[in-house]
Amino acid sequence: MLTTIGLDADDTLWQNEAFFRLTQDHFVRLLADHADPDHLAERLEAAERRNLGHYGFGVKGFTLSMIETAIEVTEGRVPAAVIGELISAGRDMLEHPIQLLPHVRATVTALAAEYRMVVITKGDLLDQERKLAQSGLGDLFNAVEIVSDKTAASYRTIFSRHGTGADQAMMVGNSLKSDVIPALQAGAWGVHVPQDLTWALEVADAPQDHSRFHVLTSLEGLPDLVSDLATRRNS
Amino acid sequence: MLTTIGLDADDTLWQNEAFFRLTQDHFVRLLADHADPDHLAERLEAAERRNLGHYGFGVKGFTLSMIETAIEVTEGRVPAAVIGELISAGRDMLEHPIQLLPHVRATVTALAAEYRMVVITKGDLLDQERKLAQSGLGDLFNAVEIVSDKTAASYRTIFSRHGTGADQAMMVGNSLKSDVIPALQAGAWGVHVPQDLTWALEVADAPQDHSRFHVLTSLEGLPDLVSDLATRRNS
Repeated sequence: MLTTIGLDADDTLWQNEAFFRLTQDHFVRLLADHADPDHLAERLEAAERRNLGHYGFGVKGFTLSMIETAIEVTEGRVPAAVIGELISAGRDMLEHPIQLLPHVRATVTALAAEYRMVVITKGDLLDQERKLAQSGLGDLFNAVEIVSDKTAASYRTIFSRHGTGADQAMMVGNSLKSDVIPALQAGAWGVHVPQDLTWALEVADAPQDHSRFHVLTSLEGLPDLVSDLATRRNS
Repeated sequence: MLTTIGLDADDTLWQNEAFFRLTQDHFVRLLADHADPDHLAERLEAAERRNLGHYGFGVKGFTLSMIETAIEVTEGRVPAAVIGELISAGRDMLEHPIQLLPHVRATVTALAAEYRMVVITKGDLLDQERKLAQSGLGDLFNAVEIVSDKTAASYRTIFSRHGTGADQAMMVGNSLKSDVIPALQAGAWGVHVPQDLTWALEVADAPQDHSRFHVLTSLEGLPDLVSDLATRRNS
């Protein structure tokens, strides 16, 4: 029996990775005059990976990684004005308007009538709260959980706190690594809704032959999938 | 009837502001060679205040505010090596060992035997989780809530979720502004345990003549205060 549906936020409810890519392109353009333009994006990604244990996920840590990489690739010659531009670029990300992905509002509205709905997201607290407030979806959710990482343990805790346990819950999101695999490990259903852009640190292989693993091309198909599961159980 | 005790973390369970002050002093020394040394600390504080709505609370936002101020006070002439030092200083803050304040472990252990205990703290998610893990106090608490701001509304939500409502809860902490005043507004008891150092943005006037407001010189007195409240009610 399914009672609770968890939804990822970034790139599941609204666009996010596209803003990171735009800022990363801006970073590369800004630094191209001051350092070897090859591999700038790779150096930035390496810094993000290296700093994840210090900064966690989110825009503030990304901004600090951009600044650190700018110093590193210029061997300390980057002008302060360029650092100032990177700070502004990070701040722009914290202010970008929220664009819901297609079918999000209708899908969440339909499911909220029958299920407990929980947003489960990583990132900076204030930034994620701001985006949820601007999305206008807040009232459709029973709870919002902003976590430092998405693990089987965190899904078990969240689905016990806000639902009836992970085995009666479903997690839906664009990241196999964060949304699907640990949710399946916790005993929940895991539904992957891929987006065009995936951050390198979120790439993972799809689970093989898992009865609770599903893939949807868009959130539009989620209510039908949920009904199918209910029908299959009762038939 | 009191069922639930909320405890602030930074400068209530462990030292925190002292590390910010040390880093701020380091900032002033680093910049003194490159800018007018007067008012450097004030300029940094102004940046923190201005950026609070963008970055929220925590070390990552503080680091970004130091970098922004360094660029500003040098009119863009700060060497990248100094910015690199500021990034390192921020990272050191994210790694400093946890030093429990006096009487914390004994007090929390005693109260945890009778009350639901909740840590309620602001700051960066990952950093606060790291500090709680290193404190060794994690198992004494029933729940941990890391919030973007402490308001009457957030206390009401938290004390309903983890207790029996704000009117049967107490909030204990070093900040009148964040720990005491909004908790009293929510209907809870508010207990102020002042520390030597208080961040300028947390300064507030003490409530006047509020029956649920108490001041303790140390956490050591908390179990007695709690017993007194129980006795007074039953007598």
